[in-house]
Amino acid sequence: MNKHAVAVLGASGYSGSELLRYVAAHPALELVWATADTNAGKPVSELFGHLGDFGDVVLQPTDIDAVPEIEVAFLALPHGSAATHGRTLVGKGVKVVDLSADWRLRDAAAYPEWYGAPHPHPDELGTWAYGLTELNRDAVAAAEGVANPGCYPTAALLALQPLVADDVVAKDGIVVSAVSGVSGAGRKIDAAYLYTELEGSFGAYRVGKHQHTPEISQELGVDNLTFTAHLAPMTRGLLATCYGRAVASAEDIRSSLERAYKGEPFVTVLPSGKQPQTKHVSGTNRAIVALEVDARTNTAIVTCAIDNLGKGAAGQAVQNANLMLGLDETTGLTGLGIFP
Amino acid sequence: MNKHAVAVLGASGYSGSELLRYVAAHPALELVWATADTNAGKPVSELFGHLGDFGDVVLQPTDIDAVPEIEVAFLALPHGSAATHGRTLVGKGVKVVDLSADWRLRDAAAYPEWYGAPHPHPDELGTWAYGLTELNRDAVAAAEGVANPGCYPTAALLALQPLVADDVVAKDGIVVSAVSGVSGAGRKIDAAYLYTELEGSFGAYRVGKHQHTPEISQELGVDNLTFTAHLAPMTRGLLATCYGRAVASAEDIRSSLERAYKGEPFVTVLPSGKQPQTKHVSGTNRAIVALEVDARTNTAIVTCAIDNLGKGAAGQAVQNANLMLGLDETTGLTGLGIFP
Amino acid sequence: MNKHAVAVLGASGYSGSELLRYVAAHPALELVWATADTNAGKPVSELFGHLGDFGDVVLQPTDIDAVPEIEVAFLALPHGSAATHGRTLVGKGVKVVDLSADWRLRDAAAYPEWYGAPHPHPDELGTWAYGLTELNRDAVAAAEGVANPGCYPTAALLALQPLVADDVVAKDGIVVSAVSGVSGAGRKIDAAYLYTELEGSFGAYRVGKHQHTPEISQELGVDNLTFTAHLAPMTRGLLATCYGRAVASAEDIRSSLERAYKGEPFVTVLPSGKQPQTKHVSGTNRAIVALEVDARTNTAIVTCAIDNLGKGAAGQAVQNANLMLGLDETTGLTGLGIFP
Amino acid sequence: MNKHAVAVLGASGYSGSELLRYVAAHPALELVWATADTNAGKPVSELFGHLGDFGDVVLQPTDIDAVPEIEVAFLALPHGSAATHGRTLVGKGVKVVDLSADWRLRDAAAYPEWYGAPHPHPDELGTWAYGLTELNRDAVAAAEGVANPGCYPTAALLALQPLVADDVVAKDGIVVSAVSGVSGAGRKIDAAYLYTELEGSFGAYRVGKHQHTPEISQELGVDNLTFTAHLAPMTRGLLATCYGRAVASAEDIRSSLERAYKGEPFVTVLPSGKQPQTKHVSGTNRAIVALEVDARTNTAIVTCAIDNLGKGAAGQAVQNANLMLGLDETTGLTGLGIFP
Repeated sequence: MNKHAVAVLGASGYSGSELLRYVAAHPALELVWATADTNAGKPVSELFGHLGDFGDVVLQPTDIDAVPEIEVAFLALPHGSAATHGRTLVGKGVKVVDLSADWRLRDAAAYPEWYGAPHPHPDELGTWAYGLTELNRDAVAAAEGVANPGCYPTAALLALQPLVADDVVAKDGIVVSAVSGVSGAGRKIDAAYLYTELEGSFGAYRVGKHQHTPEISQELGVDNLTFTAHLAPMTRGLLATCYGRAVASAEDIRSSLERAYKGEPFVTVLPSGKQPQTKHVSGTNRAIVALEVDARTNTAIVTCAIDNLGKGAAGQAVQNANLMLGLDETTGLTGLGIFP
Repeated sequence: MNKHAVAVLGASGYSGSELLRYVAAHPALELVWATADTNAGKPVSELFGHLGDFGDVVLQPTDIDAVPEIEVAFLALPHGSAATHGRTLVGKGVKVVDLSADWRLRDAAAYPEWYGAPHPHPDELGTWAYGLTELNRDAVAAAEGVANPGCYPTAALLALQPLVADDVVAKDGIVVSAVSGVSGAGRKIDAAYLYTELEGSFGAYRVGKHQHTPEISQELGVDNLTFTAHLAPMTRGLLATCYGRAVASAEDIRSSLERAYKGEPFVTVLPSGKQPQTKHVSGTNRAIVALEVDARTNTAIVTCAIDNLGKGAAGQAVQNANLMLGLDETTGLTGLGIFP
Repeated sequence: MNKHAVAVLGASGYSGSELLRYVAAHPALELVWATADTNAGKPVSELFGHLGDFGDVVLQPTDIDAVPEIEVAFLALPHGSAATHGRTLVGKGVKVVDLSADWRLRDAAAYPEWYGAPHPHPDELGTWAYGLTELNRDAVAAAEGVANPGCYPTAALLALQPLVADDVVAKDGIVVSAVSGVSGAGRKIDAAYLYTELEGSFGAYRVGKHQHTPEISQELGVDNLTFTAHLAPMTRGLLATCYGRAVASAEDIRSSLERAYKGEPFVTVLPSGKQPQTKHVSGTNRAIVALEVDARTNTAIVTCAIDNLGKGAAGQAVQNANLMLGLDETTGLTGLGIFP
Repeated sequence: MNKHAVAVLGASGYSGSELLRYVAAHPALELVWATADTNAGKPVSELFGHLGDFGDVVLQPTDIDAVPEIEVAFLALPHGSAATHGRTLVGKGVKVVDLSADWRLRDAAAYPEWYGAPHPHPDELGTWAYGLTELNRDAVAAAEGVANPGCYPTAALLALQPLVADDVVAKDGIVVSAVSGVSGAGRKIDAAYLYTELEGSFGAYRVGKHQHTPEISQELGVDNLTFTAHLAPMTRGLLATCYGRAVASAEDIRSSLERAYKGEPFVTVLPSGKQPQTKHVSGTNRAIVALEVDARTNTAIVTCAIDNLGKGAAGQAVQNANLMLGLDETTGLTGLGIFP
């Protein structure tokens, strides 16, 4: 197969290494450049023991002027620097999938409020496609720059967006209570992320302040959504448990959800009475969604399980790149998960 | 110290073994009888390797006619049989702390609806004290029979009850999204609870149907509470994340919470900006509560961390027994948690 | 690609489901039959949530008369029944890879001693090829029946066999102290394998009696090997730490090891000073070997990390099937591991 | 009870916080000083959430001139600085239990070889008692300075020392293959100890170079012992699996072991056929020892499970302090473990 040259910028973190893993398994992509900052100059094998032949790839400094000829760039860079590098690469004709938050929000005021720093190009916000593939397929396929969604927004939006769009769940009073594995925090060297501190422990964090709140709100088109993030003692996996007021019958709510994902290769809707386990999607680009309508309280409870590094990051990034390149959307993404 | 003779009925499960552990550490309690059903005749050491000298205790059949002279009985029996045994023991003048759900609900119609079987003595429902100690201290101290709260209700009520009672959080639309470690499921020998199936996995269960829902609703005095339980890959620990509509200022809500637990030896209220980790209460009878009021959505988000086997079961049972015996409430419960 | 029809007998355990996963990823194999005993009649999705489209496969009873036309059968059956079924299938012209222990030992007396039951066809022991691929490649390629090695023997033999064969490590006094993740115990529904019992715990088991002892001894050609197995609180992964008396220089011992695995696609020998982590081979057919020669005590310490379900079971089974079918040995086995 | 004033120097690591926990539970000890270096000035609660009232203790700089009047000092300081501080405190008439390695080795040449730096007072090596309590009780009781054993040596020596002393196991060719939980590495902020890197992984480390090797050898009186340390994905717990050539009958070896620990409050010898689980001693000062003599290979296989922070560090330190103060050796150490 004719291969498309790709680069992974920021390959020394967990999203970056997962991108390398997906690219390695992809029959139509070929890695030609991988970068890092503090780890530039090291072979990948010094950072990661699981990447086989890719271990010989030497990480380059993230110097955009030195970028080789590529068709697609995946950006797993820190917020802030991604915006500028992404814009430059698009300007050079490269298709860019940005895994940072830099091009997700459309409201220029929201970015500094939630990310604590001004956006470097605020007037260009809203010009990239929001890459929740199933819900925005045409825009992604046509885009030069795709803002890959955050992990929590991916799960929350897959659970809620069809129901809000179909007006079967009310727009006000939505609550998203979500839980991530520790890899969601990245490869951050901090006492709080030591094995000994997190093993056997569960807690909420950044309550009322999590930066994924405006992203979920924006895509749902609601303005008073409550979102709480929690960390669970596991490496991968993310579950969003979403609560919304039912404004249609249980049957209509279920129909809305099933219609939204009928034929979708990566989204499974479970029958009533079943709930997803995060481990069942571990290592994959899959999402599993379940719905119960609590007749007693008139509440739709929608859960969605993903792998935070898969559909929540690198998997969806490759899915988007496939669309941008005109490939079958599932190319390189059909590997089964690992269980147990 | 003069010791009070106690019995643990149902000592072969995790609540039962935790009761043995607390009794062993208690300067004023002395174990004189421990029972089990399928494991009757075995020394405790065959079931549990951690109980030291208590390992020599031989488990007796749960035959109420054979009960020796005791002052207090802890019942860690299955729902249904606990009701009858507890009633009989109270009739014999024994103070009973029942860790099952049998005497928690006051509404005779609710028990069969949520527990799937008729209550053996429905007309006596409501005659036992509900043993959430901090919120019902006088009734517990005066009671002959105490219904020890469920693990989820303990955390949810500690988080919400003062706020609802003070009318600073609205009674309608409350959502409780809670997470337990696996020991909450007991020592159930089932494929779903194998190490290999649960390690690295997170999921919701019994959505819309969990039997702790009416218990929380009853004690809060609300009727449309939404409650979802989840299992996290850890052995102990429980966190309830509770969402309620703020109907007072953030300051008033915080005052209500701090007033409720001022001077309480087992409940800590964290300052704004801090969140509890379940591991910080592991092995103890402590609860840690945190509050944030999300001004954007006008929502009080209250979290409460407990050890599901401690404040959520055996610890609170001993706390209640202390009150019933006229002992200092903290006797035998001051051991620090184990960390890391 | 022209596909070879394969069957997986015993697909409801962890080796079986891992075989399904590897077959799904294999471009030249096509699953046409999957069997189970107590779970016959169920779709795979009722047992496993991670197998995507394979979830629709309905498990058939393990009735050898009903076997469809197949080229290769993978047997993940209990010891004892595998021997008879495997022999029958070979008689029908099917190539068989048996993951049970039934055809591994050549000594008819050893089987009942270590497996506690007579072998059904003791006079035919020794007629199947022992499938430690790297060390027995030609015999595997020519065989109709391959005895796939045990998980512990795979790691111990990869570590030790070249050194013993080259006489650089003495044959007497070898000690193998090895550790497996819990999936090595299979999907056994027993209190000992509950999450709550194993999480945070480590211990040895079957000390002096483990049935893999004669298998390792046979293939090394030694008769007083000491082997101890341990269970670690993790799902996958196996590390064998092997101790042997050095009877050559450290350089010669290292040369022996490196020569043995030069060019091997699935075995990596680390430089001195580095040690493998089991997680680096998780989900793969890879093995990582490390060697230190302790000059102070004249001891070669060789470690080998594998995935007990990969190179220790299903991965190596597919590697052997590839050879038997004349395919490139790495076909379908090149997927990278999952990390973190 | 009249209380003895104690200090914990180095209270911000895991051994230090475990010392605080044991002191809090001790009826005859009273904490009057707790120190730290980089964390000086912080209340303990900022570092540890589990220490209840002790959370208000403010950590002081480790300035020996500022030491208040104390009877006992526990040193949980880095190797090197402990030697000097310990010596100074003994000079002031304080009884010192040093959890570092500084006073363990008697051979002045061994310290720099294994610890990579010269000992500050090499001529005084050998003047402190080696505090493996059960095997050195009289010396500990009489000592002003006690070198608390390393975690691996504690388990290995409890397993082997009686057998070597009784000449029922040969002195040459002993192999100790041991495994620790991650807290054994301390609260070191390093990428290698992140949750994501260690969860689900197992590996050996410092093979042939671990600094506990000379300590075990010294106390056993052997000179060619092979020791390998491994890290398992659990927070606490340590198992040493020890292999020695049997030079007496299996009965005599068992008698030697049982005689050694008859009546010992903290050491349990299991009957043949049983093996310890580290979780059964979690949170305690207990050790569980098991023995099998493999008749086939003439090898004694002795396992010993401890909590690396309990009998392997803080628990044994308190046991030693009890002896030094003339208290009952078990004071403050009788709490049961936590399980599950």
